[in-house]
Amino acid sequence: MAKVKCQMSISLDGFAAGANQGEEHPLGEGGESLHEWLVKLPSFNEAHGRPGEGEGADNPSDAVFREAAQNTGATVMGRNMFGPVRGEWGDSDWRGWWGEEPPFHSPVYVLTHHEREPLEMQGGTTFHFVTEGVERAVELARESAGERDVAIGGGAATVQQCLRAGLLDELLINIAPALLGDGERLLDGLGGLDASFEPLRAVAGPEATHLLYRVAR
Amino acid sequence: MAKVKCQMSISLDGFAAGANQGEEHPLGEGGESLHEWLVKLPSFNEAHGRPGEGEGADNPSDAVFREAAQNTGATVMGRNMFGPVRGEWGDSDWRGWWGEEPPFHSPVYVLTHHEREPLEMQGGTTFHFVTEGVERAVELARESAGERDVAIGGGAATVQQCLRAGLLDELLINIAPALLGDGERLLDGLGGLDASFEPLRAVAGPEATHLLYRVAR
Repeated sequence: MAKVKCQMSISLDGFAAGANQGEEHPLGEGGESLHEWLVKLPSFNEAHGRPGEGEGADNPSDAVFREAAQNTGATVMGRNMFGPVRGEWGDSDWRGWWGEEPPFHSPVYVLTHHEREPLEMQGGTTFHFVTEGVERAVELARESAGERDVAIGGGAATVQQCLRAGLLDELLINIAPALLGDGERLLDGLGGLDASFEPLRAVAGPEATHLLYRVAR
Repeated sequence: MAKVKCQMSISLDGFAAGANQGEEHPLGEGGESLHEWLVKLPSFNEAHGRPGEGEGADNPSDAVFREAAQNTGATVMGRNMFGPVRGEWGDSDWRGWWGEEPPFHSPVYVLTHHEREPLEMQGGTTFHFVTEGVERAVELARESAGERDVAIGGGAATVQQCLRAGLLDELLINIAPALLGDGERLLDGLGGLDASFEPLRAVAGPEATHLLYRVAR
């Protein structure tokens, strides 16, 4: 059955992004260390249109990423994950961080307070801009995805919104063994959240540890 | 070879203790949720003088705790872990949270700024009060432990001191699937730490997930 899932990479001290995020540092200062384990994997390279590239097909992290990414029919993300532009879109020609053929290959619903026409990219990705909040974005994504899953792409604030709204079914936390010391924590300000997290799986790769939880109200 | 090891239980959002620690809430508000997975285990009950009690011998967490606790020859802990008394000891008769037969059965070195005579308890535990800092406490503990390991008992501030001083060889993080939202984080203020964390193992128990890291400079 289709589910709403999310996978995020965090540092050992819990940050999903370092300090001072912006065009120069999309993941904040030091944030690239959160994905070092990932970007070299065959499954990641395949998802990004580079089949056969990468190393570590026998790395347990490769199977974890492959499974997490499969069967995704639509994605919801926060505006800051889409790009560094803030406020009104105006005549911004920002088309995402991912070039002309983004790795989503399906509809992406971007949360924003400012309306913007959909942006059709190559390879099946269309960015839709949703101004009616995260519940509506997930509803639209579910409709698009049909029997496939909806992925919550991030960032941290969007994941927190989904948790508060009870929208998430599964959370995969990839812990990179780095300490950032500052930035945006994945799980912050969630004391008293009416949700339970059931540990489903734990996998230690050589460069990251993966924790899969079922989330329920 | 003898090592300096530490195991700490934290919430999913990274807290080793909830807010407002004190005599009423040794682990802070909500802090007992960090140890729910633990206190029922046979290995924990055995270590606390109640052999044969507890449930879940087939729970993977039981083996994790048993292995983490074995071969411990001495313990180092912060003063706040020893008790709620602050400042000069004066005529305090505080003898720890653990009753007359604490579960350590070996010397315990308590970090404090205030001198106090050693406190010999039943069952082989003696509390020594160390005013010369964490490096000295670990040195004394190593001498006592001989070929056995030194355990860093906590709390979070003491673990952070050990990490900054490069004293820790292994860190086991037990993640309880709770969200505290506030309190004392295990890994805080450690940005730029000159240390590497190598993931050694990850185990998902039904009520907690366990991450073992080798720590190196």
